[in-house]
Amino acid sequence: MTRVSRRRLLGTGAIAAAGAAAAGASAAAAPAAAARTSPAATADVVVVGAGLSGLTAARDLVAAGRSVLVLEARDRPGGRVYGLPLGDGTTSEGGAEFIGPTQDRIAALTRDMGVETFKTYNTGKNVYFRNGTRSLYETDGILGAVPPDWGVIDLQIALLRLGEMIKQVPVGEPWKAAKAEEWDAQTFYTWSRSNSLSSGARFLMDAFASSTLSMRSQEVSLLYLLHYAAAAGNETTPGTIDRLINTKGGAQESRFVGGSEQVPIRLAARLGDIVRYNSPVRSIVTGADGVTVTADGITVSAKRVVVAMSPAIAGRIDYSPALPASRAQLMQRYPMGSIAKFVGVYDTPFWRADGLTGQAVADSGAIDATFDNSPPDGSRGILMGFMNQANIRRLDGASADEIRSAGLASFTKLFGDKAAAPRITAFQRWDNEMWSGGGPTGIAPPGALTAFGPALRAPCGRIHWAGTETSDYWTGYMDGAVRSGERVAAEVRAAL
Amino acid sequence: MTRVSRRRLLGTGAIAAAGAAAAGASAAAAPAAAARTSPAATADVVVVGAGLSGLTAARDLVAAGRSVLVLEARDRPGGRVYGLPLGDGTTSEGGAEFIGPTQDRIAALTRDMGVETFKTYNTGKNVYFRNGTRSLYETDGILGAVPPDWGVIDLQIALLRLGEMIKQVPVGEPWKAAKAEEWDAQTFYTWSRSNSLSSGARFLMDAFASSTLSMRSQEVSLLYLLHYAAAAGNETTPGTIDRLINTKGGAQESRFVGGSEQVPIRLAARLGDIVRYNSPVRSIVTGADGVTVTADGITVSAKRVVVAMSPAIAGRIDYSPALPASRAQLMQRYPMGSIAKFVGVYDTPFWRADGLTGQAVADSGAIDATFDNSPPDGSRGILMGFMNQANIRRLDGASADEIRSAGLASFTKLFGDKAAAPRITAFQRWDNEMWSGGGPTGIAPPGALTAFGPALRAPCGRIHWAGTETSDYWTGYMDGAVRSGERVAAEVRAAL
Repeated sequence: MTRVSRRRLLGTGAIAAAGAAAAGASAAAAPAAAARTSPAATADVVVVGAGLSGLTAARDLVAAGRSVLVLEARDRPGGRVYGLPLGDGTTSEGGAEFIGPTQDRIAALTRDMGVETFKTYNTGKNVYFRNGTRSLYETDGILGAVPPDWGVIDLQIALLRLGEMIKQVPVGEPWKAAKAEEWDAQTFYTWSRSNSLSSGARFLMDAFASSTLSMRSQEVSLLYLLHYAAAAGNETTPGTIDRLINTKGGAQESRFVGGSEQVPIRLAARLGDIVRYNSPVRSIVTGADGVTVTADGITVSAKRVVVAMSPAIAGRIDYSPALPASRAQLMQRYPMGSIAKFVGVYDTPFWRADGLTGQAVADSGAIDATFDNSPPDGSRGILMGFMNQANIRRLDGASADEIRSAGLASFTKLFGDKAAAPRITAFQRWDNEMWSGGGPTGIAPPGALTAFGPALRAPCGRIHWAGTETSDYWTGYMDGAVRSGERVAAEVRAAL
Repeated sequence: MTRVSRRRLLGTGAIAAAGAAAAGASAAAAPAAAARTSPAATADVVVVGAGLSGLTAARDLVAAGRSVLVLEARDRPGGRVYGLPLGDGTTSEGGAEFIGPTQDRIAALTRDMGVETFKTYNTGKNVYFRNGTRSLYETDGILGAVPPDWGVIDLQIALLRLGEMIKQVPVGEPWKAAKAEEWDAQTFYTWSRSNSLSSGARFLMDAFASSTLSMRSQEVSLLYLLHYAAAAGNETTPGTIDRLINTKGGAQESRFVGGSEQVPIRLAARLGDIVRYNSPVRSIVTGADGVTVTADGITVSAKRVVVAMSPAIAGRIDYSPALPASRAQLMQRYPMGSIAKFVGVYDTPFWRADGLTGQAVADSGAIDATFDNSPPDGSRGILMGFMNQANIRRLDGASADEIRSAGLASFTKLFGDKAAAPRITAFQRWDNEMWSGGGPTGIAPPGALTAFGPALRAPCGRIHWAGTETSDYWTGYMDGAVRSGERVAAEVRAAL
């Protein structure tokens, strides 16, 4: 049974009042079979999902004096923001990790939560491993890994073309681009092959799609990719590819002291017991006067519900009456990327002494990109390797030892023998996470945005949609999640 | 509570024994809240879904002496095979409708059920409406609607190329084609634009994708489309585009006396009360010794479970432990098409007297293709119009009157004023059907088959997959559904 007492929240002086109605004293005395009977609660708004979007929405609604209940499937807040336990009491960022310029809303939330940020280690050269050869490069971002000879020009021309197209995409409404139909009819793979000839340029464009979306370029609508880059900015600064991929001045510029998970953890703590864990929502029934949201262990009657999940995962809930076809079809057409992180913990960040940033791009091995994930004081060295979709597939069914071996083989190839024997390794793959279904974000395959894009955000009666996928700016990022929570809270407030 | 008695089934003399264990006498006496408590049952195999694939699997498993319980979400069998009520006690085919050469397994089942077939009316000329002009053509199949002048040659060359590619696709395993990666990296739209220049050829290739898959060519992987055509045959006769699109000699050659729904209705009746309706399955838990399948109103313990649903809809079930990532990702990448049928019932099939088959292709209006759906004796005339994805989208939120007006405007444009005032109209759209999620079939967007294709059929422990999407031959058709049921039954028998 859930009892949510009146309590002060967020230092705003606002009062949260998620009134819980008891399910009846008989429940406790009922036989074993009746233990499945759920207690009932009421609230103005139910928020489904305690990721950054759901927590932000709850914060704003509580601040507006509304009673809110947040139902979270997992036993923790944060969703795709997660501190991967290293087994020694510490964690390393297992999910969303970075913060960069123009990510204003996550920045504001971070300040509000009292969490500090620090610059991602970025001094020295980056490693580029391709066709069996390891080389070093200085330019920031993976696209700086200059392909040999004329591939440089080939890539730059393609990037210039992409940049021009990105400017033509209305942020948040890519389906309104003048050439939306043309761009949404093809994959990014098709475009990159039509607009480059060198294998180096093509490799780096695939690596760009793979490293930003954790999706093969074959799967991604060109329009979606343009939209993703157009969103990498804010109301005064247009989005660019550089801002997506760069460390300095880009989305990977800074990290969070204590790990990004500090932000949702602290926000959830401030919200207190209106956040209910281990409560996966199974059904949402809309009636004449409100909605009934049924989760494992609780049923809540509310005026409105915010579904703060990716479209693909939101599609698992049973909606009654059925959602409009356009929304139902959209949820079948927004697959999650596949991403995994492999972490090695060393006594020191030894690569720094070798003049390396810890950042690498590779065309082979289990790991295709790396970052220096060491703590701010460099008191120990943490290498983090991304595994992209194709690489993860090859590890389906692999044992922990096999994964460790594959990860360390990559680290050693990129950073030398010192990488071979970390004190600790850890591994997190998101396509095995039932409540995320993949990561970092849901993407649109060809034809989806032009046919169903507006259903991303359009409320369905009393059901409102949040989640980073619904954001105008920084969709796919923590900033987009926060923006979507703020947007949906305003939307719900206007509707209540 | 479900009690499944021993009973003779299917004339094979086989005994079905789905033993039902009572939930305990206390359930009946429990308080109101405990009414939600489910009775428990046991069976060797639970089949989820009473469409043709699930019913066929159940038939074969029962014939092999296994106890089976079929759990169906709807209050009827048939899934995407459905008799649309006309309001006068009769029905017209609202879903899958036709049967043609090489569809051997639905043919055998049809004979076994004592259902007769008859030739689709196909005498006379077809209507082609494009760019505001109505013309007539004689060649069978929509691709016979010859575009003006050199477009004829343009289209034929493209079709020859497609035909050569289709031959290179291994039936049932398209991901093993030598050029699988190349073909899966692009949409059919991209291919058709690269391999034709005339607007007429391009229009007809789009119409081909749209009429066979109810999907815009922008959404469909080229590899998937080739695979779909390669599957339009049987073990001795290779699949071709012609067999997909033609009436005479093709997939639309014949219809079922009494409607296609007679087949699943009679099969379900023979299976008797092992088919349980109004029982949507919510979760499948795999344990050490078996599975526990929980549906609304019942929980079943079994040795194996067959999920006989499209991947997208199967993805809504809660699996514990979580499915392997490749299967989970696949289910996010197999969206259903959007299809609707609009039916007009007239005193006579008046178009026949005008020398028309009743078949049409149109580039505008709510209806893009039509068929003569009259009963075998022509005692009344029934025109059936398909609405493709783009057309259905425009009718989102339209009233019944608006839909009727739009449908009749199309019929009148194609078949003259006599089409304006039918006695009855009826309308069925599948993207509004919660338990189908669209129709006629799930398709693969670019990149899905090559990365996740094998997960279509590969069992996940005690969980086996059926449904027309998993079939080698005639995937997407009733024949594929029956084949998948037979294949999965053999698979489960071998595993039990």
